Parts: sequence; C-alpha cells; structure tokens
Amino acid sequence: MTLATQGPVRVVGTGLLGASVGLGLSTRGGDVVLHDPSRTALALARDVGAGRPAGPDDAHPTLVVVAAPPDVTADVVLAELEAHPDAVVTDVASVKGSVLAELRAAGADLTRYVGSHPMAGRERSGPSAAVPDLFLGRPWVITDSGSSRPDAVLAVRALAVDLGAVPVSMDADAHDAAVAVVSHVPQVAASLVAARLRDVDEGALGLAGQGLRDVTRLAGSDPALWTSILAANSAAVRQVLVDLRTDLDAVIGALASADAATGPETVELGALATIAQAVAAGNTGVARIPGKHGGVQRVYGVVTVLVPDAPGELARLLTDVGEAGVNLEDLQLEHAAGRPVGMAAISVLPGSVEHLEAELTARGWRLVS
Amino acid sequence: MTLATQGPVRVVGTGLLGASVGLGLSTRGGDVVLHDPSRTALALARDVGAGRPAGPDDAHPTLVVVAAPPDVTADVVLAELEAHPDAVVTDVASVKGSVLAELRAAGADLTRYVGSHPMAGRERSGPSAAVPDLFLGRPWVITDSGSSRPDAVLAVRALAVDLGAVPVSMDADAHDAAVAVVSHVPQVAASLVAARLRDVDEGALGLAGQGLRDVTRLAGSDPALWTSILAANSAAVRQVLVDLRTDLDAVIGALASADAATGPETVELGALATIAQAVAAGNTGVARIPGKHGGVQRVYGVVTVLVPDAPGELARLLTDVGEAGVNLEDLQLEHAAGRPVGMAAISVLPGSVEHLEAELTARGWRLVS
Repeated sequence: MTLATQGPVRVVGTGLLGASVGLGLSTRGGDVVLHDPSRTALALARDVGAGRPAGPDDAHPTLVVVAAPPDVTADVVLAELEAHPDAVVTDVASVKGSVLAELRAAGADLTRYVGSHPMAGRERSGPSAAVPDLFLGRPWVITDSGSSRPDAVLAVRALAVDLGAVPVSMDADAHDAAVAVVSHVPQVAASLVAARLRDVDEGALGLAGQGLRDVTRLAGSDPALWTSILAANSAAVRQVLVDLRTDLDAVIGALASADAATGPETVELGALATIAQAVAAGNTGVARIPGKHGGVQRVYGVVTVLVPDAPGELARLLTDVGEAGVNLEDLQLEHAAGRPVGMAAISVLPGSVEHLEAELTARGWRLVS
Repeated sequence: MTLATQGPVRVVGTGLLGASVGLGLSTRGGDVVLHDPSRTALALARDVGAGRPAGPDDAHPTLVVVAAPPDVTADVVLAELEAHPDAVVTDVASVKGSVLAELRAAGADLTRYVGSHPMAGRERSGPSAAVPDLFLGRPWVITDSGSSRPDAVLAVRALAVDLGAVPVSMDADAHDAAVAVVSHVPQVAASLVAARLRDVDEGALGLAGQGLRDVTRLAGSDPALWTSILAANSAAVRQVLVDLRTDLDAVIGALASADAATGPETVELGALATIAQAVAAGNTGVARIPGKHGGVQRVYGVVTVLVPDAPGELARLLTDVGEAGVNLEDLQLEHAAGRPVGMAAISVLPGSVEHLEAELTARGWRLVS
C-alpha cells in the first residue's frame, strides 16, 4: 500500500489513539517513531507494532501527531512545534477551541499546526488496546488554525485518509459546538438518567427493558476522561444543557399541572400540549440523524424473530435471511427476562418484510413481528 | 397445550396489546371473545385470529382483559365489572395508580379487580400488528388492588403465565415509581436530547455516532400515547425529573465555573469534582441494570470485527463464531460513515476473547477489537 503521508511520523502519547495511529501507519508501510513520558506505555506500543521508540537520529519528523490527554494537549503541541521547526504538528484531542486558544495565547507557530479529531474510540484504553483499523470509515475532523499553511492541512488530511478515515473540514468552534450536541450532551444525559437508578430497589430494576439500556449505555464512561473533555468544552456544552433545561422545566411544570388535577378531563389543555410538544420535538430531532453509511436515514421495516439461546442459532437465522435473498440492513438483539431465548429485530427494506416473514415462517422460525 | 386460564376470556379493546392477548390465548387453545368500539379494529382482530366477536351468548366471561388507552381504562374497567358480576377484571394500562384511584373513587368492586402491566410492545400498533408471542419472557406486573380476592390475583397470574410472560407482584404505587425511573424518564430524556438536533447543521449531524443513536432511539415514540402515559403518571415522573434537574443544575453550574476560568489549571477544583461526581454517579447507576436473562449483569469481553456490507457476510461471521465453539452473548452492529462496511461487536465471556480473536483472525476476519 502506498501512503500519502510522507517521511517519518512522530507519535507523542502512545495510549489507545496514539498507538492505533502508529499501528495503522506501520501496518500500511509507514515509518513511525514513538514518544511517551511513560516508559511502560512506550514499550507496550512498540510491542504491539505501533513503531519504534524515538532515538537521537529521529530529530526530523515530517509530521507530529500529539495524542495526549485534552488538558495537556496544548503544552505538548507547543513543545513539539518548537522542537521540530520543519514539522507539521497535529493533535487528536476531542475538543479543539481551547487547544487553539492556548496555542495562540502562547504565540505558537500556527502555520504548521492543524488540529484534528478522529471520531473513534473503544471501551478499552491504553496501547495494548490499539488496532490498526480503529479509524476505518470514521469521520476525522480537520480544523484549520486560521493560519495553517495549505500543505500542512493536506498532510493531516493525508494522515486521515491513510488510516481509512473520512476527513471532514470544520473550524474549531463549529467542531466544538457539534460535538457538544452529538456527543458531550448525550453523555451527560445518559449519566443523569443512570444516576437515578442508584437508589431504586431491585424489583424496579427487574422491569428494565431495552429502552433504558440504550439511553444509559454511555453512562459507563470514565469520569476522569469525561471531566477533562466536558471542562475543555464547557461553553458549548453548557449552552446546549441550558436549552435542554428550559425544555425540562416546561415538562416538569406541565406534569405539576397534570398532577394537581383530579382526573385527565380536568387537566389544563396547555399542560398536555406542552408534553406532546416535547415528545414531538424529539421526533423531529431524531429523524435528522443520518442513517447507515452516512446517507439520508431510511425507514426500514423490522421483522422480529425468536431465537433460542443456543450456539449457532443466530447464525442459522441469518443464513436463512440470506437464503431468502433479503439484505439485512441492521440487527438488534434483545434478551427476554428469565428465559433462555432472545429476540432478533432484523431491519430490511420495507418492500422485503412480507417476503421475509413468509420465508422465515416456512423455515420454522417464530416471529414476534 | 393446557391453559391455566379457565373459561371464556373477554378482551375489550383490540389494539396491539388486546389482540395479542387474544391471539396468544387462541393459539394455545383458549376461548376468546372480543369487543371494541371500533368495528374495523374488531374485524381486524378477528381476522388475525385473536378470537370471535362477542355475541348475545357470551355474557358470562370468566376473565375480562381491558386493553384500552390509559385515559379511558378506569371507565371501561368499571363498566365491565358492572356488566359481568361474576368475572375477574384486569387491565393492561402502563400506569396503575391513577386507574386504581379512579375505580376506588367510583366505588368499584375491587375484590374482582386486579391491575396488570405486561412490559411488552412493538414499534407498530393496531390489531394487524398482533403476535401471539408478544409477551414471551417479558415481565408482567400484577398489582393487587389491596382488596383483590386471592383467586382473582391467581387468575391474572395464570393469564400472564399462559402467554409466556414472567409475573411480577408489585403494588400500584411501587409499579408507577418503578416505570417512572426505568421507562418514563428515559423516554423524556431521549426526547429532550433529540430535540437539540432540530437546529444543528448537517455537518454536525455527520459526526453522530452510535452513542447519540442509542441515547435518542426512544425519541421516535408517538407523542399522543406518551402524553397520555406521562400525564397519568405525572407525580412519579415529576419527582424523578426534579431530582435529575438538581444534578443537571450542578453540572451547568460547574461548567460555568470552568468556562469563566482562563485555563484548566485555574478552574476551581470543586467544579471539576462536581462534573466527575455526575459521571461517577452514572457509572454506579448503570452497573445496577440486570443483564441478560434477568440475572446479575456480567461483564462480557467484546470482540469487534469488520463485516463487509454484502448479503451473507454476517451469517458467515456468526457461523465462524459458532464453529470456534464460542457462545455469543450479545451482538451490536455499527455502520461506518460513508463506507460499505460495518462493525460487529460480539460480546462473549471474558475467558473466550483471546481464543475467539485467534480463531477469527485465522479465518480471515479483520478485527477492530
């Protein structure tokens, strides 16, 4: 494979992201030198194939990728810009405006700096979790500093493309506003909903369904990392949370009005309309999320099938779906409370639903939908 | 199949739930008579096999199941108790306290009334969406009225068991408090987060990942139905939302403090601690959600595999997982932005991760995790 990225690439910070950048480039034939203040992290990154530790002969990288925690990223970028006066320097921190502001305040050479943010991650962290295809198909935001040289921007785009990502140009403030809405606020909301579960009894938890699991899945995230991210993007996140609180206040007020009434017929109509508007606004918002492959969201038909919880049953089901000539667009598994059986919700094009239902029934599957 | 449910069962309201009750009992050999104020809904329910329309000879059901919208449930239960003085009457509305309060206020015979709530549903509604196994493996809450005769409670438990559900005894207030936390508040949170997406530009939406999709999936729900549910459970839902708002206010305040500072090192430590506590509280809450099959949540290992978007590829992958002798515990599909490829996150017991990774790599699969 021929890389668009030229010359030695220096990766500073060999956690999950840095080591995956190194491993992705090395796997594709790139020359990668590594640096990390932790000798252990550095050795692990080398051992997984992310590159070789930087030595005295590695003073002249073409590109430096800073993959440090968000709160130290600006300091590390500044040091790298000064240590390597011919190199283009990028970082992969998940907040861009505060890094840029710190660099500008420190008088950094912004012509050679291009911020970036690959929208990729894993539940595990550290160099041993690195994989070369971490960025495959993921958006990789490229943020021009406002003074970035065109060749510097191209070098960072080339890095993203070499790693299989989809480069997306966006200025730092637009990036931060975007991730506040699509990532940081959903994280906060998941944590706040999950926090309500701390004190409920086990009987209540036994009624939990897939909806609760979906809403709270993000709530398992690392507090230290997220404190750093949310603090670094505080202005944008706060604005969205304040808007959310305005809607929340309206719903709480409407519920108080409904509660004060003695029966549904005496509830103020305005209160019910406020609740309905909140749910309808959610309908409008969720419909805007792009669907599979980044295209316009298509409304799929769903066929739900009972799947015995035995090895090979799900594979057999999907084989039958394939033999029915129907392309599976999405698949969700649900497990039934207290029973060795699950349900597979198979999303297919709407025109294929009837055919698939008939084929699966003929092959002995029990349909729930 | 021998049913525990005795004698003719009268189902009043032949939407999704009522028709599925009728279909489930009929399929298992039960005698079901149907009633619905809509002749169309009634005819559709009959046509899908849910039972026969009630005639003049069907005046003496043993059990009446009221499956009406939440805001008319109490009135219908009252009418059925009066029309059928020998029958046990239950309802399947998703809120129980307000129905019971209305019945009590109306002087209903609560010895023959037992509220219930099967935790089941589908994205489609109406009698044509009915399926006999809708309740299979789902919790079915049984709420004693406080005056319910033991044989009446047993009759409703038998109905749940006959339909494959798992009966769960809970009083009406405990039920309503539980569903406020595990269902109604997550619904509101999903709507509020999704509502933030109405006005962002498409570039921002292009950065949406699986986290946003999970948090907002419930936001596609029907505003009229949810207005009715939330209004009927207003006191319990409001209490949980008020608690949530207290935590939200703390996070917003902490972000304001972080924002006012000129750099991370000058942020008040208290502000960062508040943010970290909010995320940590979410960790604690989400860890309490029971896992697969209602047992204690197990921490699975996850192996993530690249899957070409071609018919049969996912089936081939799962066949290989089965042939590796590894039991798949859960499966999540993710799609890569702008690329005809997806990622399958396969959950397995932690001890099986290394073996599965080696087996799949040997069979030519590319691992992301």
